[in-house]
Amino acid sequence: MAKGDQIWTNARLMTLDPASQGLGLVESAAIAVREGKIVFAGPAADLPSSELSGATTTDCEGRWITPGLVDCHTHLVHAGNRAREFEMRLAGASYEEIARAGGGIVSSVRNVREASEADLVAETLPRLDALIGEGVTTVEIKSGYGLTVADELKMLRAARQLADARDVAITTTYLGAHATPAEYKGRNVDFIREVVLPGLEAGHAEGLIDAVDGFCEGIAFSPDEMKLVFDAAQRLGLPVKLHADQLSNLHGAALAAGYGALSADHLEYTDDAGAAAMAKAGTVAVLLPGAFYFIRETKKPPVELFRKHGTHMALATDNNPGTSPLTSLLLTMNMGATLFAMTVEECIAGTTREAARALGKLDRIGTLEAGKDADFALWSISEPAELVYRFGFNPLHARVRAGRTHITA
Amino acid sequence: MAKGDQIWTNARLMTLDPASQGLGLVESAAIAVREGKIVFAGPAADLPSSELSGATTTDCEGRWITPGLVDCHTHLVHAGNRAREFEMRLAGASYEEIARAGGGIVSSVRNVREASEADLVAETLPRLDALIGEGVTTVEIKSGYGLTVADELKMLRAARQLADARDVAITTTYLGAHATPAEYKGRNVDFIREVVLPGLEAGHAEGLIDAVDGFCEGIAFSPDEMKLVFDAAQRLGLPVKLHADQLSNLHGAALAAGYGALSADHLEYTDDAGAAAMAKAGTVAVLLPGAFYFIRETKKPPVELFRKHGTHMALATDNNPGTSPLTSLLLTMNMGATLFAMTVEECIAGTTREAARALGKLDRIGTLEAGKDADFALWSISEPAELVYRFGFNPLHARVRAGRTHITA
Ligand SMILES: [Zn+2]
Ligand SMILES: [Zn+2]
Repeated sequence: MAKGDQIWTNARLMTLDPASQGLGLVESAAIAVREGKIVFAGPAADLPSSELSGATTTDCEGRWITPGLVDCHTHLVHAGNRAREFEMRLAGASYEEIARAGGGIVSSVRNVREASEADLVAETLPRLDALIGEGVTTVEIKSGYGLTVADELKMLRAARQLADARDVAITTTYLGAHATPAEYKGRNVDFIREVVLPGLEAGHAEGLIDAVDGFCEGIAFSPDEMKLVFDAAQRLGLPVKLHADQLSNLHGAALAAGYGALSADHLEYTDDAGAAAMAKAGTVAVLLPGAFYFIRETKKPPVELFRKHGTHMALATDNNPGTSPLTSLLLTMNMGATLFAMTVEECIAGTTREAARALGKLDRIGTLEAGKDADFALWSISEPAELVYRFGFNPLHARVRAGRTHITA
Repeated sequence: MAKGDQIWTNARLMTLDPASQGLGLVESAAIAVREGKIVFAGPAADLPSSELSGATTTDCEGRWITPGLVDCHTHLVHAGNRAREFEMRLAGASYEEIARAGGGIVSSVRNVREASEADLVAETLPRLDALIGEGVTTVEIKSGYGLTVADELKMLRAARQLADARDVAITTTYLGAHATPAEYKGRNVDFIREVVLPGLEAGHAEGLIDAVDGFCEGIAFSPDEMKLVFDAAQRLGLPVKLHADQLSNLHGAALAAGYGALSADHLEYTDDAGAAAMAKAGTVAVLLPGAFYFIRETKKPPVELFRKHGTHMALATDNNPGTSPLTSLLLTMNMGATLFAMTVEECIAGTTREAARALGKLDRIGTLEAGKDADFALWSISEPAELVYRFGFNPLHARVRAGRTHITA
């Protein structure tokens, strides 16, 4: 090791090494970091003593270390909130009354269109800080409330700016096909041709797009409409994702798998064939228990089918103002366990290794392995299950991002 | 006003004044505090300008102020956690397997008996800090994991100590009749006569007991057994509470009301007659959505019946290691709305005014009114509903306890 190198000792690791069983636990462990990358993660006894000279050493006092958490599905960049609509709904208002009062997704679209890029960054920072405060080191952020070329690009630029404002990695997803704006009502294909595809090309040209997503549902876009978007993404060499089978089974999971999608997300109504197709294509099932909880859904995603077929499962907040105003990935883990009966291992893997896989970044993040970014989280817990078991509690001790330490407590 | 007096200006208040409609909102408001008590809370224009000289003034920049939050039902003092049991359950273990592995309430009893009073304080502080960090100024804490006279008193002393360790009010509840320990298996009445009642008298003599509680359920104590405890409490002049009708309808709500209980808590199985009896007796219905969520209960407490009869409703975390490892009263509010369909007003009143009522402390805390303790919370939100709508998010700006300000952000 040389000056500037760092070693964390006296740690217990959940490496999430895919070659290991379960969480890849290592007791009496150490991590060594050089130039922001992990160069060693394993039993301290295996760290060559020659490596120790010159490095800065941190005693973890027996704390557990996980890979930095990854929130792989968010709509974190948005403007305004829908608290008033929530209140009206609880007081018994119908969807029609809420719509007449200006609620629903149109209100989020109006607010985003009225906001400047700087407004969007400022409004998003408290939400991003909430995630970061729980050990998150990578956040995926979607567009989808602009629904004009200019407003979609504004959202993506705001998302990119967040990575300068905070020490966190941001990946961007273009979700032009999120909803049809009022001016295109009943003309989905026109909207796709005139807005979604031009926005995709312009955003790609500007380097703003890491992946392409859509909302495939009766109330949004049909499978055939989504194909127009996915075909365009493929021509540009961009990976795809899909909001699929959330409210009904349009076979969105199989559609996504057919395009080799990184992930299909929600999946409450996905069937056996969809789960099998995803497993075969390596498409990750991103489950979103916060939205399930908030909209009081009762149909659960088919976790058993995903297990049967070996479909990878991730968990994410789905942070958005309408159906999941949730900014805690730890609570998301507890909800994965409590609401979807996922195991502790599945919940922790789902917010680290599998979430990284859902972003196509498993080669860089998501596990504690030599060669990966030095993104990790130190926890004041006595055993891994504590991360999932508690709710409304944050045991983060420190967060390390590309080798830079941010102490919490 | 005089030196040492304080004024908060440019605020928006949710006073929770029972004489007002709903949340008792006041815009362009001020609060004046003298010697730890509120001397004025209302429209800034009504604050006599002569009162302003000499006082320290804080500009709230338009922030909302609520009464300090009150968590009126917790088992916050305990030792160890049951994360391993949670993990086993998710992995498909039966209750018998968990019991054989040393899980269940007996593990909490064993851990508390092995812990010193100082251990209990140290283990509880992170949980208390989580509550305090969300604007909580009063916390109720129950005994009930000692189940010997000495261990019950140790728990209550630890609870009292927490009020010295942090700037928060603690109220104590004696829950000797929580569970029958192994050494009294099948001998509930012997346990009550030989442990619960002597512990009650000893704890009362030491000034450790603010109220008396019990767990009335098929798996715990029968109504007749609870009467032995309540009769003793009445002789000592102590108010009572009851864990009632959580898993079945033993008419615990009506039993509690018959003793003029401060509250009956849980109440998933309470019937119309129980709700009516509570309303007549002024017994508060303390609803605990965290436990409902965590144990995957499907029967909801009869919120409609409580509304029909005018039964007061409060919300609390029920923090405990077995069925509600929850340390967020904000999340509890969201769960009250999302899981129990309570309105925004009911959720905010339920963690302020009604929670204070459930502790018999409404004369001192729970609303922003002249004469009450200067306990309040300042929030970075744009409207009251935001406190309930978000989940896994903490918009607390500052907490004021007896006039002392603790800034968060
Ligand atoms: Zn989404
Ligand atoms: Zn309880």
